[in-house]
Amino acid sequence: MAELKNDRYLRALLKQPVDRTPIWMMRQAGRYLPEYKATRAEAGDFMSLCKNQDLACEVTLQPLRRYDLDAAILFSDILTVPDAMGLGLYFETGEGPRFERPTDTIDAIKKLSIPDPEDELGYVMRAVSTIRRELKGEVPLIGFSGSPWTLATYMVEGGSSKTFEKIKKMAYEEPATLHLLLDKLADSVILYLNAQVANGAQALMIFDSWGGALSHHAYREFSLRYMQKIVDGLTRHADGRQVPVTLFTKGGGLWLEAMADTGCDALGLDWTVDIGDARRRVGERVALQGNMDPSVLYASPERIHQEVEQILASYGEGTGHVFNLGHGIHQHVNPEHAGAFINSVHELSKQYHK
Amino acid sequence: MAELKNDRYLRALLKQPVDRTPIWMMRQAGRYLPEYKATRAEAGDFMSLCKNQDLACEVTLQPLRRYDLDAAILFSDILTVPDAMGLGLYFETGEGPRFERPTDTIDAIKKLSIPDPEDELGYVMRAVSTIRRELKGEVPLIGFSGSPWTLATYMVEGGSSKTFEKIKKMAYEEPATLHLLLDKLADSVILYLNAQVANGAQALMIFDSWGGALSHHAYREFSLRYMQKIVDGLTRHADGRQVPVTLFTKGGGLWLEAMADTGCDALGLDWTVDIGDARRRVGERVALQGNMDPSVLYASPERIHQEVEQILASYGEGTGHVFNLGHGIHQHVNPEHAGAFINSVHELSKQYHK
Repeated sequence: MAELKNDRYLRALLKQPVDRTPIWMMRQAGRYLPEYKATRAEAGDFMSLCKNQDLACEVTLQPLRRYDLDAAILFSDILTVPDAMGLGLYFETGEGPRFERPTDTIDAIKKLSIPDPEDELGYVMRAVSTIRRELKGEVPLIGFSGSPWTLATYMVEGGSSKTFEKIKKMAYEEPATLHLLLDKLADSVILYLNAQVANGAQALMIFDSWGGALSHHAYREFSLRYMQKIVDGLTRHADGRQVPVTLFTKGGGLWLEAMADTGCDALGLDWTVDIGDARRRVGERVALQGNMDPSVLYASPERIHQEVEQILASYGEGTGHVFNLGHGIHQHVNPEHAGAFINSVHELSKQYHK
Repeated sequence: MAELKNDRYLRALLKQPVDRTPIWMMRQAGRYLPEYKATRAEAGDFMSLCKNQDLACEVTLQPLRRYDLDAAILFSDILTVPDAMGLGLYFETGEGPRFERPTDTIDAIKKLSIPDPEDELGYVMRAVSTIRRELKGEVPLIGFSGSPWTLATYMVEGGSSKTFEKIKKMAYEEPATLHLLLDKLADSVILYLNAQVANGAQALMIFDSWGGALSHHAYREFSLRYMQKIVDGLTRHADGRQVPVTLFTKGGGLWLEAMADTGCDALGLDWTVDIGDARRRVGERVALQGNMDPSVLYASPERIHQEVEQILASYGEGTGHVFNLGHGIHQHVNPEHAGAFINSVHELSKQYHK
């Protein structure tokens, strides 16, 4: 394996000194880039793009050719695990992801087996190793998974939901059924993420996109508990380096202390939290990733610059901050504004690392 | 006017002693009730129901006939104010509210005039006075409005939105334009709510459904600032009694201190906050309304009972709590479960008021 040339991202997550605040963007390989759209058109549909290791590698590298980013993230979908469990993932235009066979009964859940990451999910592992090789040590590669709760919402509802009617009914009426599902998912995610590390991922992130839909009690019982199980089961070292783990619950700003208690290395923040407040609350224990509202990228480069300045000043001096958006970049963002954003972080952050 | 027989709701909001925790449900006049659906079918469409004072009164009173509730809330829509400004509100099945003439330019915003509540919004005032009369003093009547930010999201986007692309672009690129709109809306809401009080409303609530989509800074600049202006401009007394004002920002659990600083009487809480934590943070200054996840009503009466118990225990002893859901009741809830919920609050809350 090539020696890692830029390890700012890994160092900041472990609170080691850096020369400037590292930056990457959630969904940086995405529809705002014309080159992404071209490759996706070549692949046909979204899952074909995920399943073709060369095209998945190509779209992973595209934003790194345009911008001076400090990390690459595996191009894949959070729903690969339930798909590998046999639910039949498909995408309907304008409708988001759907499953042909939702698992909303105890019988369906009992029948689910834990996917072998090198078999049913082998295409993801081939993408990871291809990307790692093609990165040639330029920046670290982030592997990821959805959280058990977030995966379960799609599996039980059959797709996206606004009110989470079915899964919340299950949570309150048949908690044992839901716990069985979540436990199988946690076991699956542990194998899946550890296989990503074995194939070359150098850091891991768990996306809990829908944890924020839960009550403070239910979050601990149905989401955080299974992220804890995953954190406890992960390979935390590879190639003689630590593999940092970041947890991100969208809408979880009230629960940062409980999230930090899991022993993860970093927390992702959405834009509702002041990052300086978050640092005062949990900054002794974890690094923080975030947290600009992606909608700021609709504004002028000057306005973006101001917002970057405010976030850096709020975090303050020293390491432990990975700059990012508070959610994935929107598809209608001008790629030049994304470039201006990245440059602002580079330029302005140096003064906070002396 | 008839003497108020049950003033538990008003007393709890003002932190005066009560014999049990008062309860009402957001959207208690709604589609989960068959009698509501019958009246709505009679009216034709949703806005015709709002605009007919007798039918609006009828649906307001329906839940009070079924359940032992401690407050009635005016049946209306949050978008009556922009509609009265000439935007042309209409509802498309499955699409939510839309405006024929969105106001997404400075010219359109400059042309907006502030509606006369007794003229363009006279139908709301007639509904308020009809309901107040027909309540015969049984329970207090709550008047309400959307917050300026929440109204502006629909006006600029032209309807519901997930990413608030247009209005956030305006917020970051043309803040002066958005401030002009928000200021006109705040002035309109002050007149509108004061007219509701003049016509019989005994308490007021401001629904900031989309404040939680903003960053912590932008929330203060674009939402809270205008709720502050409204709180400062409201009639706070009528009929020799105080008219309590409740602010509710969905997803605003991180910002309770700033909300309490407005000088309102109470804060609405969604279910992501622990109500005991909220009381420790701001309970000296404001009463608290909430905060059960409406999805708990999908569960059995036994499970609902447990959840009520947990929330009451978390708030603890004494006044200052108005029980409610953390959001409007869902349309697929069994009305008998709503009844079991209300009975549980009655039964369990007495021990906290000795």
